[in-house]
Amino acid sequence: MTTEKTATIIGGGVIGGSWAALFLAHGMKVVICDPAPKIKEIATPQITAALEELASIGLALPDGPLQLAYDPVLSHAVASADVIQENGPEKRDFKQQVWADVEKYCKREALLLSSSSGIPASEQSLRMSHPDRLVIGHPFTPPHIMPLVEVVPGSAKNEGTIKKVIAFYEGLGKTVVVLRKEITSFVGNRLQSALFREAVYLVREGVVSIDELDRVVTASLGIRWAVAGPFKSFHMGGGPGGLQHFLDTLGASMERLWPHLGTASFDDSTKELLMKQANESFAQINYDALTSARDKMELAMVSLLKDPE
Amino acid sequence: MTTEKTATIIGGGVIGGSWAALFLAHGMKVVICDPAPKIKEIATPQITAALEELASIGLALPDGPLQLAYDPVLSHAVASADVIQENGPEKRDFKQQVWADVEKYCKREALLLSSSSGIPASEQSLRMSHPDRLVIGHPFTPPHIMPLVEVVPGSAKNEGTIKKVIAFYEGLGKTVVVLRKEITSFVGNRLQSALFREAVYLVREGVVSIDELDRVVTASLGIRWAVAGPFKSFHMGGGPGGLQHFLDTLGASMERLWPHLGTASFDDSTKELLMKQANESFAQINYDALTSARDKMELAMVSLLKDPE
Repeated sequence: MTTEKTATIIGGGVIGGSWAALFLAHGMKVVICDPAPKIKEIATPQITAALEELASIGLALPDGPLQLAYDPVLSHAVASADVIQENGPEKRDFKQQVWADVEKYCKREALLLSSSSGIPASEQSLRMSHPDRLVIGHPFTPPHIMPLVEVVPGSAKNEGTIKKVIAFYEGLGKTVVVLRKEITSFVGNRLQSALFREAVYLVREGVVSIDELDRVVTASLGIRWAVAGPFKSFHMGGGPGGLQHFLDTLGASMERLWPHLGTASFDDSTKELLMKQANESFAQINYDALTSARDKMELAMVSLLKDPE
Repeated sequence: MTTEKTATIIGGGVIGGSWAALFLAHGMKVVICDPAPKIKEIATPQITAALEELASIGLALPDGPLQLAYDPVLSHAVASADVIQENGPEKRDFKQQVWADVEKYCKREALLLSSSSGIPASEQSLRMSHPDRLVIGHPFTPPHIMPLVEVVPGSAKNEGTIKKVIAFYEGLGKTVVVLRKEITSFVGNRLQSALFREAVYLVREGVVSIDELDRVVTASLGIRWAVAGPFKSFHMGGGPGGLQHFLDTLGASMERLWPHLGTASFDDSTKELLMKQANESFAQINYDALTSARDKMELAMVSLLKDPE
């Protein structure tokens, strides 16, 4: 149970709904604020399914009816929330306006958190009176399963607020990493983008298909990096000489490779090529079946990593 | 049980020893060819430990004494082998000389395989009479656990040989991906290098420490990519609109980010910074304890991914 009792989710799409399930599973009351006309019909089944997934790994769900409500009017929706988690479109102007409005109507001590995958708090908070209130709490899809939350304060920051944000996410069982400096797209997405640029390049060059590239990753790097991150992995991969030995030998050949890594662009012909291959493969499978198989396996993996025995 | 009965491992270090264990576990006779004076004392315990790991996941080991021998003289060592798996230093000149020699002394139908993580077969085979015999069989550390083998023929290639190589590795339970085009460092290492360049950049910039970066990866991208590769992951992350929706929306912002991703160099001050942080962290832990914990977790993960129930 977290100290915070009520949450308002701004934007009830895939990310917002997944957060909602996690908050509900930890005994919070949740209000979803989303102007979409059929939001309740779309979001509630997703949230219910996510709650069942969480129950399947032993997270005890609160008794009684779901403490879930919908309110499209921001000024009401945020008025009594202890936590406001924003998951709107990745547009600067939208986010700046939302936070200016939220600040007017929310409680003075409410935590103001953005799920943005790329727009720093310093940019989102430009129209706020107290920009130090806003902190990025960037999850990985799907937030109810993936352990990571990147916490990124803006250039205006308040140590007390950051501590509360960390405690809030850790109370939900999350793995929190606080960035020491603000940077566009934060850490996880920058790493992912760097790898994906090379992935698109290799498919474009005809070295492998998208399925073959995916298979390379799931059969090697994914397993490696689920168990140990890149630095610790190279420390172990370098033999008993460790990271020092890696840097002195393989590091040099990696550095020689860097200038030869590829570039890519999502121009029309690249998009066509990728979609052609996707349509011959995973895009033929029902979307809900795909994501539910993914969720099941990720949940099993998270349990295994948490409790190796 | 593979069709091939005997294997010679050239280079009995961490990679060669791990291959040896896998070959032995599948009932092959193994000869290790390595000029290091204490190779037997170093390699045998490693191989025995790896065999115990394989037994722990239910791989039935052959009865009787280990079918493992050591022979430092290449001309003898390769004479009766069905498979020769080379794991020597990543030096063009060394590999070119080894293959010229191997070709002279090996059986006509022996499979000639290099574990090289970066030097293409076309370069390694320059002094061979039949360069189409050499094929890259690039594993991921540790080869007795990691499913992937990248099979990369040279510009001279023989379809019959490639088929035998695929069948051999699949007979060992490996996930084989055959590259459609030769490219330096192949696919897995290029992807890894692209991500690692950004990782070193982010640590150098002071955005995160190496431990924090590793934690970001293990708590997000590792789990994601163990379950589904980058393309399928973005297909599922894009909501019901799939990869097409991802390419049309988030793809554009990723493309805008690409030119702003970092560069890095393993200059002295970077190496010092990385080693300072490593020495305050994982480098303090006993190397064997680290790798054995890693192996145990990776084995559990491989079992889980193979058999989700």
